[in-house]
Amino acid sequence: MTKAAEIRRHPELGIDDRQQVDAILDEAFVCHVAYLLDERPVVIPTLYVRDRDSILLHGSPASGIVMAVRRASPLSVAVTLVDGVVVARSGFQSSINYRSVVIHGHGSILRDAEHERALDLLVEGLIPGRLADVRRPTRKELQKTSVVSLPIDVLSAKVSTGPPEDEAFDLGTGVWAGVVPMTVSFGEPVPSPDLEPGLHTPDYLTAFRRS
Amino acid sequence: MTKAAEIRRHPELGIDDRQQVDAILDEAFVCHVAYLLDERPVVIPTLYVRDRDSILLHGSPASGIVMAVRRASPLSVAVTLVDGVVVARSGFQSSINYRSVVIHGHGSILRDAEHERALDLLVEGLIPGRLADVRRPTRKELQKTSVVSLPIDVLSAKVSTGPPEDEAFDLGTGVWAGVVPMTVSFGEPVPSPDLEPGLHTPDYLTAFRRS
Repeated sequence: MTKAAEIRRHPELGIDDRQQVDAILDEAFVCHVAYLLDERPVVIPTLYVRDRDSILLHGSPASGIVMAVRRASPLSVAVTLVDGVVVARSGFQSSINYRSVVIHGHGSILRDAEHERALDLLVEGLIPGRLADVRRPTRKELQKTSVVSLPIDVLSAKVSTGPPEDEAFDLGTGVWAGVVPMTVSFGEPVPSPDLEPGLHTPDYLTAFRRS
Repeated sequence: MTKAAEIRRHPELGIDDRQQVDAILDEAFVCHVAYLLDERPVVIPTLYVRDRDSILLHGSPASGIVMAVRRASPLSVAVTLVDGVVVARSGFQSSINYRSVVIHGHGSILRDAEHERALDLLVEGLIPGRLADVRRPTRKELQKTSVVSLPIDVLSAKVSTGPPEDEAFDLGTGVWAGVVPMTVSFGEPVPSPDLEPGLHTPDYLTAFRRS
């Protein structure tokens, strides 16, 4: 699976377990996509969702990512979750704990029923439970949003976890070492100013991504 | 300043205020760097710090980023902060609130005193207050860590904020709309298992990035 896996030992661990890769891809919803523009690399943040063995990205038909795919130009997509700051006894060993997946490949643009299904998955991936509450996309909206599918095939996945790995000569020197955990949390939903009074906040938002 | 700024109206706002750009760069500590490898784009997450009008990245001398800079190959670096999930009345308008800066350019590899100073800034950027507590890097550590400086010059900065911008025909349809705020928080420092008993946790870690 990890045809181009760049696996490093210490402190990063390369992973080649597809379930772990999928768990990382399913926890995040923002990725960073690199594409070529006039032979230069460009990276941008964008939303994505995993659909079985692919990830789906959307953008306007004139966006850099979509245009790159139309030219059959390759993409590289990174998903990164930061879990903590590693406070080592030396600057050199100080780092972060994180989980990341980088996928390389050629995307394809989805059409017709696949396109519309992909947009549904993107809504549901960002806001689980939401799809049942929103109307279908209009024809104009479908025309304004292209979806790119990129196979989860050639990838590099890394996990860095646990306490700092200090040099033996740094131990017992009276310098504190450890990890400051970092977490992402979602607050109480804030209603739009133009919301009708008395409208109940959906349960899937009050429990947003807390499962 | 924003020579190649890709400014979009609604719902994203392009910003060309350098103070706002610096505030985004100073709040985050992980960026995504795109570089070329055999004419393909590759994106990876890495740590960075802003140093006045540049950002500093570090990596092993054989790392993809450092090798790209040695070849005078351009970089693209994205810093993204996610502030919330925008729950619109339609799938099409659903999105995220975020702040992002993407910098394009050619990096240079720092040498000697600049190199060592940059490593200090990287430590202090990741863990403010830490530098005074750690020893100087060894010669071997300096040899194993190259630092790339990239000017904050050609960039695109975007801020998306506030409630969803729904179509007029979606208002008053009984569908909830609003924003679920997202925040990053840092927990209590977890000491290393090999820490000497009774060692006090530094104040800069108990108040880590909470200012």
